[in-house]
Amino acid sequence: MMRTRPLKVALLGCGVVGSEVARIMTTHAGDLAARIGAPVELAGVAVRRPDKVREGIDPALVTTDATALVKRGDLDIVVEVIGGIEPARTLITTALEHGASVVSANKALLAQDGAALHAAAEKHGRDLYYEAAVAGAIPLIRPLRESLAGDKVNRVLGIVNGTTNFILDKMDTTGAGYQEALDEATALGYAEADPTADVEGFDAAAKAAILAGIAFHTRVRLDDVHREGMTEVTAGDFASAREMGCTIKLLAICERAEDGASVTARVHPAMIPLSHPLASVRGAYNAVFVESDAAGQLMFYGPGAGGAPTASAVLGDLVAVGRNRLSGATGPGESAYAALPVSPMGEVVTRYHISLDVADKPGVLAQVATVFAEHGVSIDTVRQQGKDGEASLVVVTHRASDAALGGTVEALRKLDTVRGVASIMRVEGE
Amino acid sequence: MMRTRPLKVALLGCGVVGSEVARIMTTHAGDLAARIGAPVELAGVAVRRPDKVREGIDPALVTTDATALVKRGDLDIVVEVIGGIEPARTLITTALEHGASVVSANKALLAQDGAALHAAAEKHGRDLYYEAAVAGAIPLIRPLRESLAGDKVNRVLGIVNGTTNFILDKMDTTGAGYQEALDEATALGYAEADPTADVEGFDAAAKAAILAGIAFHTRVRLDDVHREGMTEVTAGDFASAREMGCTIKLLAICERAEDGASVTARVHPAMIPLSHPLASVRGAYNAVFVESDAAGQLMFYGPGAGGAPTASAVLGDLVAVGRNRLSGATGPGESAYAALPVSPMGEVVTRYHISLDVADKPGVLAQVATVFAEHGVSIDTVRQQGKDGEASLVVVTHRASDAALGGTVEALRKLDTVRGVASIMRVEGE
Ligand SMILES: NC(=O)c1ccc[n+]([C@@H]2O[C@H](COP(=O)([O-])OP(=O)(O)OC[C@H]3O[C@@H](n4cnc5c(N)ncnc54)[C@H](OP(=O)(O)O)[C@@H]3O)[C@@H](O)[C@H]2O)c1
Ligand SMILES: NC(=O)c1ccc[n+]([C@@H]2O[C@H](COP(=O)([O-])OP(=O)(O)OC[C@H]3O[C@@H](n4cnc5c(N)ncnc54)[C@H](OP(=O)(O)O)[C@@H]3O)[C@@H](O)[C@H]2O)c1
Repeated sequence: MMRTRPLKVALLGCGVVGSEVARIMTTHAGDLAARIGAPVELAGVAVRRPDKVREGIDPALVTTDATALVKRGDLDIVVEVIGGIEPARTLITTALEHGASVVSANKALLAQDGAALHAAAEKHGRDLYYEAAVAGAIPLIRPLRESLAGDKVNRVLGIVNGTTNFILDKMDTTGAGYQEALDEATALGYAEADPTADVEGFDAAAKAAILAGIAFHTRVRLDDVHREGMTEVTAGDFASAREMGCTIKLLAICERAEDGASVTARVHPAMIPLSHPLASVRGAYNAVFVESDAAGQLMFYGPGAGGAPTASAVLGDLVAVGRNRLSGATGPGESAYAALPVSPMGEVVTRYHISLDVADKPGVLAQVATVFAEHGVSIDTVRQQGKDGEASLVVVTHRASDAALGGTVEALRKLDTVRGVASIMRVEGE
Repeated sequence: MMRTRPLKVALLGCGVVGSEVARIMTTHAGDLAARIGAPVELAGVAVRRPDKVREGIDPALVTTDATALVKRGDLDIVVEVIGGIEPARTLITTALEHGASVVSANKALLAQDGAALHAAAEKHGRDLYYEAAVAGAIPLIRPLRESLAGDKVNRVLGIVNGTTNFILDKMDTTGAGYQEALDEATALGYAEADPTADVEGFDAAAKAAILAGIAFHTRVRLDDVHREGMTEVTAGDFASAREMGCTIKLLAICERAEDGASVTARVHPAMIPLSHPLASVRGAYNAVFVESDAAGQLMFYGPGAGGAPTASAVLGDLVAVGRNRLSGATGPGESAYAALPVSPMGEVVTRYHISLDVADKPGVLAQVATVFAEHGVSIDTVRQQGKDGEASLVVVTHRASDAALGGTVEALRKLDTVRGVASIMRVEGE
């Protein structure tokens, strides 16, 4: 049964994502109405530059006064696709206070202030949905929050940033160095002029915080996520990875400790075996592995960014929120009842690949091995390569804590037979 | 806020899936309660053999009178994991009439009578959820119905039967014939004693009907799905596939016609390029590709069957339906507003790989090529191999309709230089 009074939707931001949301709302109006049960009306569009020509958008709807728009009081749904912390945070809060449900694509804000925003939504009996905030078009938040609601998720492991995956894929397939691959990503529009948020892992860390929070029913903030960027990955690292039958990916990893009593979340480059499905995720694509008690291993794959894919996720949320408006219900909100402690990086347990430059003389291997043993880090394999009085040792460890590995490396640096630690890389997905 | 009065759940069937549902309901009772907002109580378990020992299940709850159980009137949710058409259909309908929402894993029933069951659910204001009916643990129905609700799905292409994928994977990797691979699947418990439903494609066809219905907002019944099994796939077909850089999978394919005005659904073995992500789906795993206007290509991967994985999907639905019970709302029901016609197989357009045994004499290729041309089927490549007066021709076509290809093959069989049509295989995923 179709209601004739339309749902009023305000769009905050009309850039890469917002313009696609507006376009699809117009071109697919009939489908959206049928799926929601009421037509959807674009009631206003807030932007920074009012005079910019925006194809398909009635100029009368455009305003620079986003605050007045969200205070109108007659809005059913506010779609926030401005990005950043402010004014997005205040606008979302104000929209909820004035009775609108909110759909957002804002990972930075959700990772930083998700709890407060969820509380505001709950207080006002409204929805706050943000499928588009993690991995663009890939359904991930809804499957984790709803499909796996009867299961126990133990691990989320994924490639959640397309820019860095593009760069690493380039380095892997062409042998290019980091800077060269970044330049190509920039030229092709895969990297922004200032790529910091991507290459330093801030974007992936925000997504890891959101995923960990939902997967473990625990509040995980951006600050809880250990973060290492990928600017120091070298062509040499890829060569080492290949020798081990691996490649290198920037991974977001959210894990429940083996005893189940705590969780961790981290973002860093890591080696993964070429046989792992994540190894073959090419270009700017994203993919996320989810491991749970009953379901086992699931993988979700697709375009992690881009205007249209991200708009697809926004509109999926818009339909769900719209349906909830009509039925007077709200969907699942924050679920943080488990309230597990988030452990520091030192407690994370994984394997390591370490390259050392050492003096090429007898006894060095014994010295190095002793240091590993003293720190309780057990060695899986060692490869020794010597040339002209210089030598390198490549050590792959069994599983050890980050703290134990850190202590080992510190002690190795103090050995006078160790000239330097050329690289340390975690090994995941085995 | 936790409600203290529990939601009463009846379990119809306690076999492979049901026993896992019961186990998780007990072991994860606290988590389920927190996620739903009320505790869940197992109120009754209907089975065929009441005296079978069922670990962890209070014998006082067990009954053989499923009808009396669903008529009790105090049930909030009925979980149907008996399977088959009757008594499952009558029990589900009766449960809905008596005020319970229903969660089912029953693909055969949903594919045959989904519309009537949805109508019953809607009439009584209750939910009917069945994520577990398609591809076990893999979230697929919820993403299609909800995450992609703002998008336009054009194609669903997937491996949705683990038994047949196990058999085909064995044939591919070991060179085994169909019977040998089936025997191994049976020995390992991947195939049932009577494997007909799997190897003849009935199981996959039921899933295709369900997926097509949801993806295209159109009623698609089992009878609308063109179905070919995989019992005639030979080691020779795999050899031909390998020569083309392909492998063979049993695929479920749901497509919107290019003009958007009709849809098709089919299940059959097909060659797909080794570079396609579906080509590397091993063993009994399932994976489904979804292509839509805005999101582009998404893939969902995971265990498509098994007690625990299927129970994970059932319990995800249980949480969603439980939440709806508490809020007094219902989730999305059937969406068939688009009501697109389902075209017959003759209108499906794809590429074909055809092997012909022909006489080894001049002019045969010209004759054969003429037949293709007369039927409007354009040839991409031909490979000719001759030995001892016998020869074979391998023809790969450009895209053509199934009807045109059928006419071509019929005419080829009438040529006296064509000794036989050794195999015809569709080529997909390019
Ligand atoms: N782009 C993607 O692929 C992608 C993927 C996933 C998630 N997201 C998220 O989606 C959000 C939007 O991203 P985007 O790429 O669409 O950004 P964008 O292209 O930079 O667009 C931002 C929009 O916000 C408007 N805006 C900026 N400040 C404003 C203010 N103070 N008041 C009102 N409007 C203001 C801008 O107005 P003008 O048009 O006048 O400049 C512009 O229309 C971000 O949270 C981002 O993280 C993006
Ligand atoms: N197994 C999988 O991996 C899987 C995956 C996806 C979906 N599914 C679907 O899940 C459903 C159940 O499959 P399953 O493998 O669990 O089947 P199953 O092991 O054969 O279990 C069937 C259960 O139903 C009971 N039952 C049979 N007839 C009954 C009747 N007339 N009244 C009451 N109870 C009756 C049986 O009782 P007894 O225990 O006394 O024999 C048994 O407990 C099917 O629809 C199937 O298609 C299964």
